[in-house]
Amino acid sequence: MSDYKSILNKIHGTIKASSDKGKVADYIPELSKIDINKLGIALLDNEKNSYSVGDAQEKFSIQSISKVLLLSLAFSKIGDALWERMDVEPSGDPFNHLSLLELENGIPRNPLINAGAIVVCDILLEHLEHPKADFINYIRAISGDNTIDYDLNVADSEKKTGFGNYAAANLIKSYGNLNHDVDSVLDFYFHSCSVAMNCEQLVKVFYIFMNRGNCLQENNYLNVSQVKRINAIMLTCGFYDEAGEFAFEVGLPGKSGVGGGIVALLPNQFCVATWSPGLNEKGNSKLGMLALEQLTTQTGLSIF
Amino acid sequence: MSDYKSILNKIHGTIKASSDKGKVADYIPELSKIDINKLGIALLDNEKNSYSVGDAQEKFSIQSISKVLLLSLAFSKIGDALWERMDVEPSGDPFNHLSLLELENGIPRNPLINAGAIVVCDILLEHLEHPKADFINYIRAISGDNTIDYDLNVADSEKKTGFGNYAAANLIKSYGNLNHDVDSVLDFYFHSCSVAMNCEQLVKVFYIFMNRGNCLQENNYLNVSQVKRINAIMLTCGFYDEAGEFAFEVGLPGKSGVGGGIVALLPNQFCVATWSPGLNEKGNSKLGMLALEQLTTQTGLSIF
Amino acid sequence: MSDYKSILNKIHGTIKASSDKGKVADYIPELSKIDINKLGIALLDNEKNSYSVGDAQEKFSIQSISKVLLLSLAFSKIGDALWERMDVEPSGDPFNHLSLLELENGIPRNPLINAGAIVVCDILLEHLEHPKADFINYIRAISGDNTIDYDLNVADSEKKTGFGNYAAANLIKSYGNLNHDVDSVLDFYFHSCSVAMNCEQLVKVFYIFMNRGNCLQENNYLNVSQVKRINAIMLTCGFYDEAGEFAFEVGLPGKSGVGGGIVALLPNQFCVATWSPGLNEKGNSKLGMLALEQLTTQTGLSIF
Amino acid sequence: MSDYKSILNKIHGTIKASSDKGKVADYIPELSKIDINKLGIALLDNEKNSYSVGDAQEKFSIQSISKVLLLSLAFSKIGDALWERMDVEPSGDPFNHLSLLELENGIPRNPLINAGAIVVCDILLEHLEHPKADFINYIRAISGDNTIDYDLNVADSEKKTGFGNYAAANLIKSYGNLNHDVDSVLDFYFHSCSVAMNCEQLVKVFYIFMNRGNCLQENNYLNVSQVKRINAIMLTCGFYDEAGEFAFEVGLPGKSGVGGGIVALLPNQFCVATWSPGLNEKGNSKLGMLALEQLTTQTGLSIF
Repeated sequence: MSDYKSILNKIHGTIKASSDKGKVADYIPELSKIDINKLGIALLDNEKNSYSVGDAQEKFSIQSISKVLLLSLAFSKIGDALWERMDVEPSGDPFNHLSLLELENGIPRNPLINAGAIVVCDILLEHLEHPKADFINYIRAISGDNTIDYDLNVADSEKKTGFGNYAAANLIKSYGNLNHDVDSVLDFYFHSCSVAMNCEQLVKVFYIFMNRGNCLQENNYLNVSQVKRINAIMLTCGFYDEAGEFAFEVGLPGKSGVGGGIVALLPNQFCVATWSPGLNEKGNSKLGMLALEQLTTQTGLSIF
Repeated sequence: MSDYKSILNKIHGTIKASSDKGKVADYIPELSKIDINKLGIALLDNEKNSYSVGDAQEKFSIQSISKVLLLSLAFSKIGDALWERMDVEPSGDPFNHLSLLELENGIPRNPLINAGAIVVCDILLEHLEHPKADFINYIRAISGDNTIDYDLNVADSEKKTGFGNYAAANLIKSYGNLNHDVDSVLDFYFHSCSVAMNCEQLVKVFYIFMNRGNCLQENNYLNVSQVKRINAIMLTCGFYDEAGEFAFEVGLPGKSGVGGGIVALLPNQFCVATWSPGLNEKGNSKLGMLALEQLTTQTGLSIF
Repeated sequence: MSDYKSILNKIHGTIKASSDKGKVADYIPELSKIDINKLGIALLDNEKNSYSVGDAQEKFSIQSISKVLLLSLAFSKIGDALWERMDVEPSGDPFNHLSLLELENGIPRNPLINAGAIVVCDILLEHLEHPKADFINYIRAISGDNTIDYDLNVADSEKKTGFGNYAAANLIKSYGNLNHDVDSVLDFYFHSCSVAMNCEQLVKVFYIFMNRGNCLQENNYLNVSQVKRINAIMLTCGFYDEAGEFAFEVGLPGKSGVGGGIVALLPNQFCVATWSPGLNEKGNSKLGMLALEQLTTQTGLSIF
Repeated sequence: MSDYKSILNKIHGTIKASSDKGKVADYIPELSKIDINKLGIALLDNEKNSYSVGDAQEKFSIQSISKVLLLSLAFSKIGDALWERMDVEPSGDPFNHLSLLELENGIPRNPLINAGAIVVCDILLEHLEHPKADFINYIRAISGDNTIDYDLNVADSEKKTGFGNYAAANLIKSYGNLNHDVDSVLDFYFHSCSVAMNCEQLVKVFYIFMNRGNCLQENNYLNVSQVKRINAIMLTCGFYDEAGEFAFEVGLPGKSGVGGGIVALLPNQFCVATWSPGLNEKGNSKLGMLALEQLTTQTGLSIF
């Protein structure tokens, strides 16, 4: 459908002119240097046609978006045993991640909050021979793009300043829900957050979740039911405490990262990624959410 | 699609034999008397074919399911002004509804928890001339079924024992988010919860949310965008603190009530209702959730 | 000890000149009209010598100070059975009184927060023949002052606007910890809060807690052990979430009210009351706390 | 007063026979090995007469009791600047220590909970040249007992398993309220907890808080006002979420540790220590609390 091209162009033009672009995340030193004016959008439809506009070929730190990839790899490895270690409910709370962990005895609310992804990393350390290499190879395999890699400066920057994550990992360990030592788990976790991609790569990676488990390269990692579950988790838990708002405004499963990226998808139809580094007060890309809201409103396409 | 008939029959047979049927709600005296062995399922597809099995023609108290109907009527009356009075985020918490209200200054998390529906009632008192009559007439109009009515015994039973709701309404009023007096608002609220329907009626009423705002009787109350938003809220907030689990297992927008009913829908395809009065520990119908999980797994149909 | 006179005069002079007097409570309409410049102090020592300065003879609404009197009357009636209905721990939280009630199943943290005093009122309704008359007579009896009375305008004002208390009472009732109906309990509660006294009367009333249970009139209502317990509760729970600060700065058991009164005591030595209607952000009289801090610092007398 | 001797003997006899002795703490491996039947009591009066009974000369791990000593040393070093880094309010909550830290932006509620003591350690690292040596020397100096020392096995045991404290320290650091690195602060913290004393030593150490700042050895570290404040904090915060109960039952400022020790004092009269390793469900020595309750009830002596 060649309409996608004109719609993306139109949205890019409108959004680009916004005066309020949000605020670049400043708690990770490496991320605070990014130009707030960057704006890219890429879309890949179910017939593998791709469309992109703006800074869609410039790499950025995908950050929390990698949590979906950690989850999918772990899910493909151990299946439903995953849910003995974490739940699938939205966390609801803007501020007190750790208090929920305390109330719920070290069982993270879902795999897309930091605590949950830390437990997923602990699981992967057990089931991958070379965790860091195996994880980046998984991303390369499902996207068919061997140029995707970690950004070691970002990983290093987070390791030095990620005290909140050290707090979460130690708290989880105090409840017995972490088998490896905190430093090993967080080393892997910080690396996973540091993966750099551009919008065009992101849609290729997430094609698998749009296409019922069949990735671009025709190899199957996940079955239909597992993809349904991952998409459900993205919808209910993918945007911190703004998941309801994203479902309400955009109506697509997706995931955001503090690097300013968002990726979303309409099953069997398309996968879309946006990048704009300014965040709203909930930590999601301000212009990215706006662009996606315009996309589903103008096309009339959403899961609802 | 005549397959629906055989699928529903098969599911009904399997589920009916379950030994663990959950527990009938006992905090509302009138509801505690219901036979736990009741089990009905009804489905209405987008071509208006209907299918039903078991006790699908026996009426029960829809309870919280009515919150979607209150919401839709208020949304059709005042549009997005609604969101100045409440949010659209899942509440996340099993236990402390009132503490969230305190933390968030009397702004309910969403319109499908008690606090939110109470504020919706307050809004409707302002915009309906004869609130109770107008609300039941709205339900009759969108379903084309004039036999749907309040169960005054249930309304009365709740009014006498609903101290938790009196607490919520007074707390909201203490924050200035209730314009009418508590007794008037709760009288309307308890009536709305008491509406009695059977599964076949429920799917006719919810046809409007499956059919992009066009109800069975061809009159439009809601536009496509409003229906998208209501369905999004059902998905993220429709099952108390089990919304994530329902999205994960079933993958459809829906709403449950403590009377044991659940209604869910796949946009443009079908609307389905189940009734089994035994609840799980989260307050959702145990066998109803199981039946819907089997439906989406066996048909491979879900929004994800 | 004639020193008290000069110390009180000196403190009154210093404090009176403070430019920041806090803010008069405005959520109870009747209280918002009080002149912020009022300042009174009265002290009664263990030899029944009395000293006063400033507006110590002007009556004000004692508000939460009455919770100690409700508690002491209930304690004298049913003894330790009281503690089956409430706890004796500080609440710790500035904001979420109701969430604590939810977490703790309707058992108030202590008898000096609103929820606790509401349960005490419920208990007294059961053990007093004429609750309102009997309560005011108890106050008159322990002080020997028959002019102490309710201020019906204040009671009425609170009844019309006390939605937060209606919320608390209904929540407690939903947990089964209230035997009488909410309206009866709160009618008594609001009356108890409305009692009007001046500083000179307050110290006569609280003499019983300073004097090991022997009140001014020589009749015994409480034994030594009960007085010890009431004083302990005042110290740990008497100043909302500023109890630690008051113990730290002043070092005396006491109780404050939003009417601007504070009463405190040093066992076997003296009882002191202050009145200044401006409150700090925690809801305690700003100048009253300052005056008491100066009193214990200048005399070197405290329980610690 | 030779009465103390007979009272202590009588209490020891009664308490020793209790069948329910609580449960020895098992989360610190080194502590789980202690014989639950140990029971010691020591008392030192204001005329330096000492009395003891049972296992009062057997050393145990003082654990959280050391928090008072850390506090007093820091208070003597930097005075009221301490309160810019922490508050003086009871925490109130049994379970969610970290959630309070989150809500209050890394400012611990008081210096006697773990989070507060960790911040005190951070402060002492800045103001002591040889922190571990200086701290133990301070304890030896105020008690005049040079045999008091760290138990390095206990310190080591806690360092390996204290994940909850690593979580707290990292969380505090994430809010910028820790100047040194987490490992250095916790190394000092775990050492401070590991100090071993017997009851007779404990009363000599705490004599300073009973005697208005003048310790046994006549050198002054704290002034009267500082001692008043430390005693006030012990009373409101010294027994986890059972501080209200201890004030209510016993009526003395004091501090407990999970090693089973409790030390308490009546200003200007006596200092008393008990040791019984079985804890109640709040983490305080079960028989120790009972013994102290009997002491104040039988002597009629308390601060109230």
